[in-house]
Amino acid sequence: MTCPIARTLEIVGDWWTLLIVRDALVGARRFDEFRKTGIADNILSQRLDLLVREGILERQAYQEHPTRYEYVLTEKGHDLLPVIVGLGMWGMKWIDPRATPPRFLHTRCGADVSSSFQCATCGEAVQPREIRVERAAPPAVADGADARLS
Amino acid sequence: MTCPIARTLEIVGDWWTLLIVRDALVGARRFDEFRKTGIADNILSQRLDLLVREGILERQAYQEHPTRYEYVLTEKGHDLLPVIVGLGMWGMKWIDPRATPPRFLHTRCGADVSSSFQCATCGEAVQPREIRVERAAPPAVADGADARLS
Repeated sequence: MTCPIARTLEIVGDWWTLLIVRDALVGARRFDEFRKTGIADNILSQRLDLLVREGILERQAYQEHPTRYEYVLTEKGHDLLPVIVGLGMWGMKWIDPRATPPRFLHTRCGADVSSSFQCATCGEAVQPREIRVERAAPPAVADGADARLS
Repeated sequence: MTCPIARTLEIVGDWWTLLIVRDALVGARRFDEFRKTGIADNILSQRLDLLVREGILERQAYQEHPTRYEYVLTEKGHDLLPVIVGLGMWGMKWIDPRATPPRFLHTRCGADVSSSFQCATCGEAVQPREIRVERAAPPAVADGADARLS
C-alpha cells in the first residue's frame, strides 16, 4: 500500500499509540506519567519501544544507578500535532462539547492557535464539507514500459 | 476520560476504521469497494456496523430482492477529513515522499486545498513546532461545591 494515510496508520493507528503522543505533547516524559492514562504496563512498554524505534520519541537517560530514561518527542513526533488537533476538534463537535481539550498555543505570543483549510486558487477559508477528495491517479507509464503497476 | 481526543479514539482510533473513512471520502460506497483495502470480510462487516451505529456512515438501500445497501458518509463522517488530511501529510513528510495521496479539492473552484494553523492574536501562519500544548485546567469549582472531579 503506497497511500501515505495507510502507511501512517501502520505506525500510529492504534488507540494507545496516539494517546501516548497526546500525553507527550502536553509534557509527559516518564513512564509513570504516561501510565496515568490507564494503559497496562506491558502495553505501555511495547508502545514506547515502538515509538522510539520509529523515531517518534527519543529515549534520554535522566538518572544513573539505576539508569532511568525519559521519552521526548522528536520533530517527527511533534509533527503529529495536526492529527491530534483534528481528533480533538472532531470530538468537541460531535461527541462532547463540554469535554476539556488541551490548549494549543503559539510559542511566540502565547495566543490560541486554530487550524483551517485554504484554497490555493481563490484564497478562501474552506470548510471540510466543501472539500471533494479525489483518488490519486496511477503513476504515468513511460513509452514501451510494462503497463502493470507494482 | 473527558478528553475529546481520547473519546474520539474510542470510536475511530483503529487502523481499519480510519481506512474505511478514507475510502468513503474518495467515493467507496459498496461492500466490494471497501474490501479492496484487503480487510477481512468479517472485520469489514463489524466496522461498517460500528460506523453506522456511531452516525459516521448511513446505510442506504440501492437494490431490492435481495435488498442491498451502500454506505454513505454523514456530515459527522465527512468532518473526519482534517484527521485524514493530517495523517496523509505526516506520511508524505516522514514515511514516503513518493507515495500517492488522494487530492483534496475545493468543490467550488476545483483547486487544491491546504491545511494550516493560524495564531488568533498575531494572525500569522504557525508551524506545528511553534505550537505549545497545555494541559486543560480542571473545571472551576463553585463556592461550597464538592471539590472532587467526576
